[in-house]
Amino acid sequence: MEGHNLDQIQTGDESQTIARRVQRLTLHLIAPIAVADYSNLQLLTCGGRAKKLINNVNTGALSDYMRGKYRDIQEKVYDYFNTRPDLQTPIEISTDQHRQLCMRQLTGLVKEAGIRPFRYVLEDPAKYFAILEAVGSVDFSLGIKMGVQYSLWGGSVINLGTKKHRDKYFDGIDNLEYLGCFAMTELHHGSNVQGLQTVATFDPITDEFVIDTPNDGAIKWWIGNAAVHGKFATVFAKLMLPTHDVKGLSDMGVHAFIVPIRDLRTHQVLPGIEVHDCGHKIGLNGVDNGALRFRSVRIPRDNLLNRFGDVSRDGKYSSNLPTINKRFAATLGELVGGRVGLASSSVGVLKIAVTIAIRYSLLRQQFGPPKQPEISILDYQSQQHKLMPMLASAYAFHFATLSLVDKYSVMKSSHDDEIVGDVHTLSAGLKAYVTSYTAKSLSVCREACGGHGYAAVNRFGTLRNDHDIFQTFEGDNTVLLQQVAADLLKKYKEKFQGGTLAVTWNYLRDSMSKYLSQPNPVTVRWEGEDHLRDPQFQLDAFRYRTSRLLQTVAVRLNKHYKTLGGFGAWNRCLNHLLTLAESHIESVILAKFIEAVQSCPEENSRAALKLICDLYALDRIWKDIGTYRNVDFVAPNKAKAIHKLVEYLSFQVKNIAKELVDAFDLPDNVTRAPIAMQSEAYAQYTQFVGFQTQEATAANT
Amino acid sequence: MEGHNLDQIQTGDESQTIARRVQRLTLHLIAPIAVADYSNLQLLTCGGRAKKLINNVNTGALSDYMRGKYRDIQEKVYDYFNTRPDLQTPIEISTDQHRQLCMRQLTGLVKEAGIRPFRYVLEDPAKYFAILEAVGSVDFSLGIKMGVQYSLWGGSVINLGTKKHRDKYFDGIDNLEYLGCFAMTELHHGSNVQGLQTVATFDPITDEFVIDTPNDGAIKWWIGNAAVHGKFATVFAKLMLPTHDVKGLSDMGVHAFIVPIRDLRTHQVLPGIEVHDCGHKIGLNGVDNGALRFRSVRIPRDNLLNRFGDVSRDGKYSSNLPTINKRFAATLGELVGGRVGLASSSVGVLKIAVTIAIRYSLLRQQFGPPKQPEISILDYQSQQHKLMPMLASAYAFHFATLSLVDKYSVMKSSHDDEIVGDVHTLSAGLKAYVTSYTAKSLSVCREACGGHGYAAVNRFGTLRNDHDIFQTFEGDNTVLLQQVAADLLKKYKEKFQGGTLAVTWNYLRDSMSKYLSQPNPVTVRWEGEDHLRDPQFQLDAFRYRTSRLLQTVAVRLNKHYKTLGGFGAWNRCLNHLLTLAESHIESVILAKFIEAVQSCPEENSRAALKLICDLYALDRIWKDIGTYRNVDFVAPNKAKAIHKLVEYLSFQVKNIAKELVDAFDLPDNVTRAPIAMQSEAYAQYTQFVGFQTQEATAANT
Repeated sequence: MEGHNLDQIQTGDESQTIARRVQRLTLHLIAPIAVADYSNLQLLTCGGRAKKLINNVNTGALSDYMRGKYRDIQEKVYDYFNTRPDLQTPIEISTDQHRQLCMRQLTGLVKEAGIRPFRYVLEDPAKYFAILEAVGSVDFSLGIKMGVQYSLWGGSVINLGTKKHRDKYFDGIDNLEYLGCFAMTELHHGSNVQGLQTVATFDPITDEFVIDTPNDGAIKWWIGNAAVHGKFATVFAKLMLPTHDVKGLSDMGVHAFIVPIRDLRTHQVLPGIEVHDCGHKIGLNGVDNGALRFRSVRIPRDNLLNRFGDVSRDGKYSSNLPTINKRFAATLGELVGGRVGLASSSVGVLKIAVTIAIRYSLLRQQFGPPKQPEISILDYQSQQHKLMPMLASAYAFHFATLSLVDKYSVMKSSHDDEIVGDVHTLSAGLKAYVTSYTAKSLSVCREACGGHGYAAVNRFGTLRNDHDIFQTFEGDNTVLLQQVAADLLKKYKEKFQGGTLAVTWNYLRDSMSKYLSQPNPVTVRWEGEDHLRDPQFQLDAFRYRTSRLLQTVAVRLNKHYKTLGGFGAWNRCLNHLLTLAESHIESVILAKFIEAVQSCPEENSRAALKLICDLYALDRIWKDIGTYRNVDFVAPNKAKAIHKLVEYLSFQVKNIAKELVDAFDLPDNVTRAPIAMQSEAYAQYTQFVGFQTQEATAANT
Repeated sequence: MEGHNLDQIQTGDESQTIARRVQRLTLHLIAPIAVADYSNLQLLTCGGRAKKLINNVNTGALSDYMRGKYRDIQEKVYDYFNTRPDLQTPIEISTDQHRQLCMRQLTGLVKEAGIRPFRYVLEDPAKYFAILEAVGSVDFSLGIKMGVQYSLWGGSVINLGTKKHRDKYFDGIDNLEYLGCFAMTELHHGSNVQGLQTVATFDPITDEFVIDTPNDGAIKWWIGNAAVHGKFATVFAKLMLPTHDVKGLSDMGVHAFIVPIRDLRTHQVLPGIEVHDCGHKIGLNGVDNGALRFRSVRIPRDNLLNRFGDVSRDGKYSSNLPTINKRFAATLGELVGGRVGLASSSVGVLKIAVTIAIRYSLLRQQFGPPKQPEISILDYQSQQHKLMPMLASAYAFHFATLSLVDKYSVMKSSHDDEIVGDVHTLSAGLKAYVTSYTAKSLSVCREACGGHGYAAVNRFGTLRNDHDIFQTFEGDNTVLLQQVAADLLKKYKEKFQGGTLAVTWNYLRDSMSKYLSQPNPVTVRWEGEDHLRDPQFQLDAFRYRTSRLLQTVAVRLNKHYKTLGGFGAWNRCLNHLLTLAESHIESVILAKFIEAVQSCPEENSRAALKLICDLYALDRIWKDIGTYRNVDFVAPNKAKAIHKLVEYLSFQVKNIAKELVDAFDLPDNVTRAPIAMQSEAYAQYTQFVGFQTQEATAANT
């Protein structure tokens, strides 16, 4: 029967013409095998329903809606670097030259362009992140070097220190005279910061701390600005205080200390400090990462960053916080801004990559129906499948990180406990989720652009190599997702004890009972487009999954706890916990996206946003269809309908893809790839390689 | 109720101790949020069933079984480069220097080490691929440069030319005097080779062909060896013959021509040829890719590679093959060896990456149960989840590509039609599938190794950047998979017309009816480990999916053909077709793996292989569980049992992971990453960066 159907294809009207389509596909291939026979009719990529859902997008209005309030300062950054081609990073550059250039870029930004990011770290974090995004699009090394100086080194002095530190260091940090490092990570310890081995022992005789690296595993490693430029470092070390008992020394836990590492005048490395260069990295080679070993390095007592814990002249410890763990959490809690910045920068990278890949996919033509022109590669279902959900995700992440930045700014001014908790977990989750997604997408974009995507000038290599480590630094993604899961479990417990829930978790309050009952046997079969594109259905689906994962992992943890203990039980459920965390973050992103669609004032833009929001939601549901089927949240007919709708929406988004990437409003000097230029892309590419334009050639001959 | 269960956790015996585990996880985090409470009991990573399934692996025996018969020549390659540290590629090197070094490496290999790969291209392809793998592990640029010279340029002369070409060029190609290029791709045409625009017009007056680049889109692009070293190029161009009618010229389709591009003595670019450098690439910068434009470049008639089509002195065309398409297919069919080489090299890359990631994951410790030493990161379920199915895949691909190489060798000597077809489709499918998998895995490995994975010296950057393009060149993976799908559809049709089936497709013969009937309602619920680890169940599951995808896509193509035509219908089903192709290739890989397990003579090695084969199979089924659930091939209880078993098998494979990577038998000078050294890895890493060992330090002070 199936054979009969198939035979109809192959004995139809067109069977006499050569099967060009498949033959072209088999081009590198198959002398002796005759080719199959699907060919030679008109092209209708998504025929039958090929009508455009949205006919035109008002790019300007959409762009206005997307644009943050700090566009001005971003344009100031772009304009400055446009006037200084000597400060642009070339396609190929040695590590040494890159580091020097990156330093010159930072100096130019601060001293010539007059952009002083440091004050915004405190006063207006949203503005700081906007500068960071713009600076990153000049060179991600510059973004990271700026982040090390202002957010890590500067931020640690300001947030972990007190007035005396501010008074002494603010100006030098601000004007780059005091270049500094953030020396936390050691060779043997990254994620487990409480396992750090470096010690700072108080010497009551000289009123100093003595910094020591007790073993090779405790060498400070990957320290940005350390190899070449840094004058100071905030060093994280175990504070050891003399006791009067037999122990002799008491470990007060990890604290932060300002340690001068190079002479302010001569730039010589100071005595007792051994610095080596961590060497060439996969990316970000404009940043000079170094390794530091300390041998009895003495610093004044005042160099302890003493906001959360202090030592008196006579070696007594005092703190407003009762335990080592609380002090440690307070110390590290101040550094959460880095994650907010990374999540938001990562969306910036994703936008650049998606823009290049989509513009090129619209330009590039390859194959076509018989006797007709070739079609653009974005007309292929497979290319839409690769790039359209990615475009939708870039929009989704844009709104989610924008809202995180806002919430972070509110937190910095209000110090409201509920917001603090929300921002901490959300920044961990979004940083992990967005950077992982962007990293994968960068590879997909390169592949989608084929050979020309492999030319360094077309950016994917640098973007991927520079962005890669976003998944690791400021908290390894696998560790950060566990923080989200831990927080969800805590909330889950509170719910049953009548506690309050942070806004982001509100849905869990009333939803657990709703979501954990058996799905309605009628709605699980609904497959109409109206139903599937209803934000309520989509949110329900995301939240159902999260609630279910949360409830089941709680039961499993409970079960395993009895035999394996806490650590063993956690590890036994680790994959489950990570899935839970991702699922929750996806729910949060979707909720923000739906909100952003509904708040969009302009009708045409709203319709475009609704379309990509639906694609975002349904694509995620389809990607995890096994989970939904396993719990019968969707019946087989509905699963099939979702799949079909995802392909259809991808096709519809393709129809407005050009406008959607235009609305990101990235100037050509940000995208830079010749294959993504908005006019004459191929000609710009041939010129880059050294060919004259055909016009020039004609004129010369 | 669930809350009650959870409360039990949190009010158990241990509730008084601080929740160290979660607290450590929240380390960077959360001053005001109290931490959850899973803590403080003994560690049992996969407790309850923590007994090792396999206690020790006979690494030597396993290695002997894995090792190809060409280990000797691989060791000759390694030994040669070990004696020549000046030929080792440094961590950082400029493009210009890298190209020169790569040329010196190739010259050294051929002229000093006396390894002459060219003869093996014809006589013993398996030996050629073994050399290629070894050479690639020295530097992948070298592997590709060697491939361009011998397999592409040399292979095109030998396979597409006739005796006169062999006599004239063999020795020069062999001894590197005639360095050459393979000039197929143009700026506007990569995959669609039949769309190439370069023309070769026969001039009957001078008995020459005139090569021309008619427009910028036809500039030959990405041509390896063209920017610096090449003397000749095999140029693919449309053969135009004069006619005596009004048309004046007749297009005979794409043919290959030998075009000298540089003077043999002076190395000057020859008149009429414009060469530019394609510039810095994401990777493989030891290979000098260039762009070529031809302006009326004249070559003798003899330079047509005339095996499949010839032109006589008076401009008459002759060929044994009846149509342009058949000649084209024959021409390109000869080049399939490149794909076999890439699939096999890609497995080599995967083995190196997996070895580095697993050795480091065993070394690296981070966090641990309260008051106990930290545990290795490979003890975490999440790390096992990332790396153990990958290790299993490396084994699976090893056996699959080994068998492809064998089959290719048989094909080259027998020219049996059935084998030719099988090799062509299988090489397309395995090249696409394996290179895509390896590319993704390289990113996962880097992430799994955290910060130290980002140091260039630890290899993941170079491996990823060099390997990346494996997905694109010698046939874009998305295009290659379509060839597999097209071939499956052809076979599907033949089945119903009583034709023969190639060995690889044999299962389709008797399986379609078996697999396409409704799954047995009893077995879909079987969840016992014996059943799930039964190779027959696993093969059935893989083949059921393929059969089902094949049958459904045939029906869909038929349906859409009526309204959209062949091209439109194909595009409308493109994602479906790609899934079908991947599913088929996975079936083939599994079948080969099962065969390899069963043929293993040594009992202990066989048990180890069986374990990883089961993991490979069940992990793939679980990854696609939505498909299986949608057609009710597995019931929910069985899906859950598969998931649990995958986690359990990952844990069991972890227990022998060290031995399994040791059995790949990669010398330290192949893996090279300090973090993967088999002894004193951390010390080798600190020394690389410039620190003295602690012993040396002690001696000096």
